[in-house]
Amino acid sequence: MARIVMKFGGTSVADLDRIRNVATRVKREVDAGHEVAVVVSAMSGVTNQLVKWCSDLSPLHDAREYDTVVATGEQVTIGLLSIALQTIGVDARSWQGWQIPITTDGAHGKARVEEIDGSRLVSAMGRGQVPVIAGFQGIGPEERVATLGRGGSDLSAVAIAAAVKADRCDIYTDVDGIYTTDPRIVPRARKLPAVAYEEMLELASVGAKVLQTRSVELAMKQKVRVQVLSSFEDRPGSMVVDEDEIVEQPLVTGVAYSRDEAKVTLRRVPDKPGIAATVFGPLADANVNVDMIVQNLASDGTTDMTFTVGKADVPRAREVLEKERASIGYAEVLADPEVTKISIVGIGMRSHAGVAATMFKTLAEKGINIQVISTSEIKTSVLVGAEYTELAVRALHTAYGLDAPA
Amino acid sequence: MARIVMKFGGTSVADLDRIRNVATRVKREVDAGHEVAVVVSAMSGVTNQLVKWCSDLSPLHDAREYDTVVATGEQVTIGLLSIALQTIGVDARSWQGWQIPITTDGAHGKARVEEIDGSRLVSAMGRGQVPVIAGFQGIGPEERVATLGRGGSDLSAVAIAAAVKADRCDIYTDVDGIYTTDPRIVPRARKLPAVAYEEMLELASVGAKVLQTRSVELAMKQKVRVQVLSSFEDRPGSMVVDEDEIVEQPLVTGVAYSRDEAKVTLRRVPDKPGIAATVFGPLADANVNVDMIVQNLASDGTTDMTFTVGKADVPRAREVLEKERASIGYAEVLADPEVTKISIVGIGMRSHAGVAATMFKTLAEKGINIQVISTSEIKTSVLVGAEYTELAVRALHTAYGLDAPA
Repeated sequence: MARIVMKFGGTSVADLDRIRNVATRVKREVDAGHEVAVVVSAMSGVTNQLVKWCSDLSPLHDAREYDTVVATGEQVTIGLLSIALQTIGVDARSWQGWQIPITTDGAHGKARVEEIDGSRLVSAMGRGQVPVIAGFQGIGPEERVATLGRGGSDLSAVAIAAAVKADRCDIYTDVDGIYTTDPRIVPRARKLPAVAYEEMLELASVGAKVLQTRSVELAMKQKVRVQVLSSFEDRPGSMVVDEDEIVEQPLVTGVAYSRDEAKVTLRRVPDKPGIAATVFGPLADANVNVDMIVQNLASDGTTDMTFTVGKADVPRAREVLEKERASIGYAEVLADPEVTKISIVGIGMRSHAGVAATMFKTLAEKGINIQVISTSEIKTSVLVGAEYTELAVRALHTAYGLDAPA
Repeated sequence: MARIVMKFGGTSVADLDRIRNVATRVKREVDAGHEVAVVVSAMSGVTNQLVKWCSDLSPLHDAREYDTVVATGEQVTIGLLSIALQTIGVDARSWQGWQIPITTDGAHGKARVEEIDGSRLVSAMGRGQVPVIAGFQGIGPEERVATLGRGGSDLSAVAIAAAVKADRCDIYTDVDGIYTTDPRIVPRARKLPAVAYEEMLELASVGAKVLQTRSVELAMKQKVRVQVLSSFEDRPGSMVVDEDEIVEQPLVTGVAYSRDEAKVTLRRVPDKPGIAATVFGPLADANVNVDMIVQNLASDGTTDMTFTVGKADVPRAREVLEKERASIGYAEVLADPEVTKISIVGIGMRSHAGVAATMFKTLAEKGINIQVISTSEIKTSVLVGAEYTELAVRALHTAYGLDAPA
């Protein structure tokens, strides 16, 4: 007997038939003698509608009210899935974040889980009841509902798996595992049987939208064994595990891309010490995440500073920068959403030189201009014009020998 | 300066434009120097969708999970309206039932409010903040969300008005007041400037769907002055007040009808003492409300027993009656949803004889068969075939002199 947390994403609970299908899968694990807790997302499309309503009312809406609105999507699913489970004879009960409780830091819209009291869930499972838990939500200060940010249901699942000391956290989704790249772009992409936490982290952060970044960080920290698998097929998925468990390390494990970022350029910033802090301090205070940063060489005492932020954060970033215009002293803010970040990822890069050089050469051969570069120990990312996305991903996938045999 | 609770129903918040319109109305009261709290329903249509999902999964679903699902409708509206208010410069914050808290008896799906702690709301209003409160919901045992039953947002509004000692509770709806009957059926129906609590109670309970029954009971008990008015027009509505305030009492104030009930007949029930308790006890235990009851004269030691229940309760009533079949000992259960209850209501009926006789005579002249009769001090109701609804209402409206001058 094992204790398993099963997590189902939006497409897996998109309508009543799929919710019934999820109930059947849960029942199978229960019938096998396992203790099961379930974490679910909102029905596919629901969250987008809720977000749109908030944005239509005001682009700079109160994040606490936004959270109140969007958290309802998961609440609907937990109630419906509980009913579906009861209908086929499985004892089940829904749990909202505040009922457990899942305590967060209260950074509304992108809150971090601080603590989960797993005791009521463990005791319910001990009685043979399946807790059906709303993903993506917790509670913040003043008893306000706080959401964990988009994709946060994965994080909920991993955090709950850690809190109830689950043997495994199965993330059911609309793909059947983790691929070397997006199969919609590269039909010859291959499914990976296992990926290291660290690789998955880089893949997630650059947009291989299988697992949300923070959920992988948490799994790594708490040593939660995660399986990514399809809710529509009966095949094993990809395991996300410690790198020691992975026998054969390729140089590059995967090629990822992200269209979620926009490029922001501050023109003619004074080139003086401390200027970066003047720019990025206020952005951080406004909860705007800055990713890639590049600063051109100075001429005439000024420089251009380029960085990327989430596309949704552009209005907020502009607002902050306008307010700080006097203290920063720049000439102009330019924002370009027509960019894609493309990354190669692999633990093997640690011990091999020249891996990034192959990337730059491959892109140059295809005539693709690199706008920004950033690197880490196991990843190299470049920002390119959005229209080159597919071309670049395909070329790199072939260049690193990732294509499946024809 | 007054303290006002404003309540907006589903059609008043049906889309973002209407939510903005509501925000403007609230701002007007705030700008006039009043302390304002707002209670809202779900956006029109949303609750029906949520209810349908639950019913489609299982006709006899867990009421606690049903509540978890349907309570989300109001949660969406409070977040959106708070954003809309903030956008036009009104300080506002959303409140869910559990956050206030609004404590109920936990009869899920039709819970009764037991206590409202108004202190946090009063203190927010004192700071100039508008509390935007989810109607229709509170909290039950084990911190589960409990809903007050359909139309329960009116009840929430009146209960909150009582809890914060409001000077007035304005119920904004899609009609501009209380009419002598449904103007869709009788174009010459007249708007009543004032109605007594007791009359309103009878009108609401028989389906003049302007105010929910229990909200009127509560208003009467707590002496909350209620105004019913349109959220789309700028005209005074109808006040619901103490009967002493109403100067001229007509014999009959209004003609109401309800299509929400179904007729249930138990054929060949043994005619013995205590049989009514055997039938209606288990129904009450299952939270099935029984309304009109009639028992035919006995022949051969058995009798037919006819009563009405809410249409939605028919499956549950059938289930209860099947289970009690042996102890009751009836031959057959028949359910007929094709009925309408039609009522005449008026405080003037107390002191005048012969008012009901006019009703029976009028219906007989139109050839309408009366299936069940029930009476109270200020009301007479009859059950007739659904196809006679309009004919009966029009004839009675004319017979009691309620038609507006042509």
